[in-house]
Amino acid sequence: MQAVAIIGIGQTKIDEQWDKSIRQIAVEAIHAALKDAGRETADGIFVGNMMSGIINSQNNLGPLVAHWAGLKVPAVKVDAACGSGGAALRSGLMAVASGELESALVVGVEKMTDRSPHEVTAALATAADADYEVEMGVTFIGLSALMMRRYMHEYGWKHADFAPFAINAHANALHNPYARLHHKITLDDFEKSVMIATPINLLDASPIGDGAAALYIVPADSVRGRTRILIAGSASATDTIAFHSRREPLFLAAAYQSATEAYRQAGVGPEDIDVFELHDAFTIMSALSLEACGFAERGQSPRLGLDGSLTPTGSIPVMTRGGLKARGHPVGATGVYQVVEVVQQLLGECGETQVPEARIGMAQNIGGSGATIITHILKRE
Amino acid sequence: MQAVAIIGIGQTKIDEQWDKSIRQIAVEAIHAALKDAGRETADGIFVGNMMSGIINSQNNLGPLVAHWAGLKVPAVKVDAACGSGGAALRSGLMAVASGELESALVVGVEKMTDRSPHEVTAALATAADADYEVEMGVTFIGLSALMMRRYMHEYGWKHADFAPFAINAHANALHNPYARLHHKITLDDFEKSVMIATPINLLDASPIGDGAAALYIVPADSVRGRTRILIAGSASATDTIAFHSRREPLFLAAAYQSATEAYRQAGVGPEDIDVFELHDAFTIMSALSLEACGFAERGQSPRLGLDGSLTPTGSIPVMTRGGLKARGHPVGATGVYQVVEVVQQLLGECGETQVPEARIGMAQNIGGSGATIITHILKRE
Repeated sequence: MQAVAIIGIGQTKIDEQWDKSIRQIAVEAIHAALKDAGRETADGIFVGNMMSGIINSQNNLGPLVAHWAGLKVPAVKVDAACGSGGAALRSGLMAVASGELESALVVGVEKMTDRSPHEVTAALATAADADYEVEMGVTFIGLSALMMRRYMHEYGWKHADFAPFAINAHANALHNPYARLHHKITLDDFEKSVMIATPINLLDASPIGDGAAALYIVPADSVRGRTRILIAGSASATDTIAFHSRREPLFLAAAYQSATEAYRQAGVGPEDIDVFELHDAFTIMSALSLEACGFAERGQSPRLGLDGSLTPTGSIPVMTRGGLKARGHPVGATGVYQVVEVVQQLLGECGETQVPEARIGMAQNIGGSGATIITHILKRE
Repeated sequence: MQAVAIIGIGQTKIDEQWDKSIRQIAVEAIHAALKDAGRETADGIFVGNMMSGIINSQNNLGPLVAHWAGLKVPAVKVDAACGSGGAALRSGLMAVASGELESALVVGVEKMTDRSPHEVTAALATAADADYEVEMGVTFIGLSALMMRRYMHEYGWKHADFAPFAINAHANALHNPYARLHHKITLDDFEKSVMIATPINLLDASPIGDGAAALYIVPADSVRGRTRILIAGSASATDTIAFHSRREPLFLAAAYQSATEAYRQAGVGPEDIDVFELHDAFTIMSALSLEACGFAERGQSPRLGLDGSLTPTGSIPVMTRGGLKARGHPVGATGVYQVVEVVQQLLGECGETQVPEARIGMAQNIGGSGATIITHILKRE
């Protein structure tokens, strides 16, 4: 495989965008990425999206987005539930790395707020096992609640110990103009927030939203001689879709596998990662992701939050632009937002939440309750 | 890009498979392809599917299928509406061609018959433009009816002139054990069949169904020294998703572009194609596909049916295993069935519908009313 570099990024604010259709949102991010890359077109478009068929009555997003962007180029949609953005990047990466395309746009997009909360809850549940989980009445947040309760039981943490994940995310989102939520929260807010699915309360959970993010990628050799953001590692792994089928319910085996492979490709280890945009759909997922990727022993990652390690100046900064928790979680777009944010960190564009001297960053995107996990490692050269 | 070869195929019968879930159907085809390839696993799985989120309340098909197949490997779903199967093959092809994977399984699967006809009609309509076409009340078959009526008006054909497309498909499906429909039809049947959307009647239209087809692909160099089926050309193109936005409503520009590029890659032209599995969702689509790919002048392809050119012993055999019309059209699986059937032809396994001395075959898969079109050319060496 030839090396691939990111030369342009784009994103929209995550919000309830009732005045825009899904194609308009996607194209806003695409045009921003084209402008950032200084290009007018690309050889192909890879769209990451999970639920447009269900929520927007619209499949065939490839030509929908390509035509609206004014680009009559090959375009396809890639789906891995909430991991769709990362999966779309991997598809685009392989198309460019193979030499099949000389450039590609990767766009993650989701428009979720047009429907009622119960319709969105049902749509999110399609990421779980329809026949063996959802059929029993469990929702997606319900599955995460089972994980969190088990984790607290096994390792002796109390609910408040998860607060730093959310507090850090909200503090960082304050400085991200594209974030959905712009308010600080305190430990007291966290503990008093509304219960959703015991022990997950409102401030453990990420908000849905409408939004799109885009990347422009090219062969790395074509941009020699100036600062480059290289995709140094890219790996995907799967686990059972049903949470109950796993031998170790509190270990994200697919996160471990995809991170290990991405580390190998990039020639780095967890100690080399300067910034880590992880998939904090719920606070428990932050904890499990950090452990599977080698940043904490099993059962010990809440300590990283409590001792301040996760803030932009800590030892392993996470959710530096707000994470899923406060930047927002437009599901199929999230994986691309994460990579866009890592690029911003590596280029030193993050102002108050800039990680000092960030040179190597990682993004990890999760589809389902750990069923599909995609890890990317970027390097600034 | 390094060359890629197909070393295994698998397929299920297309039917109303009410006793099997979508994962079971997919895995039946995967296991058949593994057995055919003489392999036990693959480095990755690419699932082509359009509507599982809507019809089966199940997204995240990658890990669903991988786990059920007993393969804990990276897996992702690729969607291009009814072109999903071809798009999944292209994704798998680029993964192997780039060197990222040393082998890949491509599986197209759809399970459509669990819901009522009006629910399936609504799901199929998500392949069209939700905001500018479906919003007006038009269905997917309605769009094709507009095309067919316009074509008959422009070029002076009558409805019966389209009969040979359907008659040939049904005649060939009689000899395909995996086909959904196993009955001959006559011109009289064709003309007397129930009207669906004027001028499209029941025998112009392909039946839906439940089914899966799979391919096992590897770098061509790894199978030197024996008969190989090479993917000699692979190309994708898009057009406007909305039919009314096209300058030339009766010319499939994306078919022309993708076929032209596939011909270029394979170093062949239409005159070299021994067998062509085209996307006959409706008889009008056969006509338009043949013209865009260079087998007939614009407006003249019904003549190919009337003069017998499309039968297995004709000059350009199409739908040799029954086509969408009689083999059946499980939408996201169709593109993989087409390629499986071309492989069968090139290996001389088609018995009564074998194309004599077939060495070069083409498959063309269409998503939407010509919005995404993917063309593959295979060569036996």
